[in-house]
Amino acid sequence: MESLSDGVFAIAATLLVLDLVVPALGNGRDVIREIEQEWPTFLAYFVSFATIGMAWVAHAAITGYLERVDSLFLRLNLLLLFLISLLPFPTRMLGEYLTDQHAERFAATVYGVNLLAISVMISVLWRYAVKERLIKSELESEDLESVTDRLTPSLILYLGAICMGLVWPKVAVCMYLLIAFFVLIPFGTIVRRRRRST
Amino acid sequence: MESLSDGVFAIAATLLVLDLVVPALGNGRDVIREIEQEWPTFLAYFVSFATIGMAWVAHAAITGYLERVDSLFLRLNLLLLFLISLLPFPTRMLGEYLTDQHAERFAATVYGVNLLAISVMISVLWRYAVKERLIKSELESEDLESVTDRLTPSLILYLGAICMGLVWPKVAVCMYLLIAFFVLIPFGTIVRRRRRST
Amino acid sequence: MESLSDGVFAIAATLLVLDLVVPALGNGRDVIREIEQEWPTFLAYFVSFATIGMAWVAHAAITGYLERVDSLFLRLNLLLLFLISLLPFPTRMLGEYLTDQHAERFAATVYGVNLLAISVMISVLWRYAVKERLIKSELESEDLESVTDRLTPSLILYLGAICMGLVWPKVAVCMYLLIAFFVLIPFGTIVRRRRRST
Amino acid sequence: MESLSDGVFAIAATLLVLDLVVPALGNGRDVIREIEQEWPTFLAYFVSFATIGMAWVAHAAITGYLERVDSLFLRLNLLLLFLISLLPFPTRMLGEYLTDQHAERFAATVYGVNLLAISVMISVLWRYAVKERLIKSELESEDLESVTDRLTPSLILYLGAICMGLVWPKVAVCMYLLIAFFVLIPFGTIVRRRRRST
Repeated sequence: MESLSDGVFAIAATLLVLDLVVPALGNGRDVIREIEQEWPTFLAYFVSFATIGMAWVAHAAITGYLERVDSLFLRLNLLLLFLISLLPFPTRMLGEYLTDQHAERFAATVYGVNLLAISVMISVLWRYAVKERLIKSELESEDLESVTDRLTPSLILYLGAICMGLVWPKVAVCMYLLIAFFVLIPFGTIVRRRRRST
Repeated sequence: MESLSDGVFAIAATLLVLDLVVPALGNGRDVIREIEQEWPTFLAYFVSFATIGMAWVAHAAITGYLERVDSLFLRLNLLLLFLISLLPFPTRMLGEYLTDQHAERFAATVYGVNLLAISVMISVLWRYAVKERLIKSELESEDLESVTDRLTPSLILYLGAICMGLVWPKVAVCMYLLIAFFVLIPFGTIVRRRRRST
Repeated sequence: MESLSDGVFAIAATLLVLDLVVPALGNGRDVIREIEQEWPTFLAYFVSFATIGMAWVAHAAITGYLERVDSLFLRLNLLLLFLISLLPFPTRMLGEYLTDQHAERFAATVYGVNLLAISVMISVLWRYAVKERLIKSELESEDLESVTDRLTPSLILYLGAICMGLVWPKVAVCMYLLIAFFVLIPFGTIVRRRRRST
Repeated sequence: MESLSDGVFAIAATLLVLDLVVPALGNGRDVIREIEQEWPTFLAYFVSFATIGMAWVAHAAITGYLERVDSLFLRLNLLLLFLISLLPFPTRMLGEYLTDQHAERFAATVYGVNLLAISVMISVLWRYAVKERLIKSELESEDLESVTDRLTPSLILYLGAICMGLVWPKVAVCMYLLIAFFVLIPFGTIVRRRRRST
């Protein structure tokens, strides 16, 4: 299961690069200005890569705690992989529609719903694993709760960002980036390390 | 062998997303209506992903039972991987032809034959492994028969759906989706769990 | 090293499907005739998939015999992976040029040289591993020679097919397919199995 | 972590082939001349493949020395994978812009910065692993320093090549190729082997 999962994460993250457009030249057009106009594509690429990275870190943490899987866990995991492998589509849509007055709202919402669904599935996977006692028995319930606590806030943040995207789509996309970084950057670890070294 | 197989499953499933089209905007066209018109592409994407997921679950179950492989098993497995990695092509064809009066029959049949061939190869792999005693010896013949029993019905269902597709192609595509779910959703497990918890 | 190699084999084999063209419809064109006209693309796809499968089988056999790798072996392996990951390009060229009177010779030759280079690199990897004693010590020199003997004929066959391709390119492509099957289909094993069962 | 990393390396290296263009024929155009005109695409492809190969060799060496990873190492590794999976984009840009008088400077610089960033991240990963004692304890500090020494020169060489690219972009691209080969070809090992055999 892990090699399929890691494969899907790796492929979805790497396929995103295919949608970065190299602008056609000619007629004295300025390269840098042409590239600059592609900023929504680059932003969408960056947010999606960060989100897949975040989802992979959370997924790797969960599978690291697992002792065994049952057949329902396998199916739930397939559902998560479906959402991950779908992400390049809303990413492409966001890159193309973010400068369109009418379509940007639609694109940002669809994109946000995909991100939220990924986060929900990761939470579902974790809660299911805890409930069905698929995790290693030496872990204390305190540790398990701390993981659950770390997974929950991003759900609320995504919901907030999606609502905000109905009014200001571009702000919502920036929030999606911040949410990914919020999970990716291990504040706790950095603080602990500093304390230890002093 | 497993890392190659999982790789092909993961890549074929993730490549499907490349064929989801982001409609061009402009001239006051409505985004949602444009996306709606792409429904055959989304349906084909969804059916193919579910089928690859189903094939992977069956394949992972078989390789989990294996004790060793011989050189003919490796070749049969390559044939299965060929059929899996081919699937994005009939998927694309189905997405483009399903709204064409003349071509939809052709596309649905080719697609169905690919799905049937995948199911046949999985059955062949399993029967070959049982016959050549490649499976772990601690498994009882009862267990083996229960696997064989679970692999057989989808073959008959696919044959039925292909025939139906000659008359109503769109109905056949919905049946392909149902067949994938039929294998994916572990009814047995759910029933057993409920019983255990009562 | 194995996971990188298997990854490249799996991706190169699966990427080939992206070059299978779904013909555009409209103006009462017949689907089946349109698809038929794409036969060089399908033939090229099929030959390349079979060749990658063959190369993977040979590569898996070699890595199965290995006890350790040294840094030069790693580099030679990278060279093989380069040739494998390049193959989709001559494949696409063959598919597009095989019906062109002038270009088909060029396309068939470039394609054949890529296949020959893959075969040469597999032989080089094996001979290097034998010479530097990277293989498991329990293997007898007889076993090693039998592997070497099985790798050699395809080199000569590829050379012959490339020469023939200068005159009849289409015949050469069929020969490339036969060579891949010659290695893939384990005649020896089948014969031995029959004997054993009688 | 290793299977995700190897996956991204393998996919990024193999996706590069999608940007090799098969020139359209017709109107008595000469195939070989058409292909020759695509030399920047082939050169960019070759340099990028060699660089990813080089980065993989260095990455595999580092992970081979590791005893454990911490959560910051995981994040730094994700940053390296981001840079690797981004590389196909500047590669495509280089292939398209290298014959354009105005854009070639821009393309060569962006490309060089991507290569430099990859090299910097590999150095950072290694230094972090050494500093945080993530590496196996049986390794002596001499061995560790020799790895550090081998990673440093390419940083300076990339900086030099980027500066040169502001004046002669094509020369810079050739230097990028030489740098990749400089790390890939294990001079030390070859010399040692010769000495041992005499």
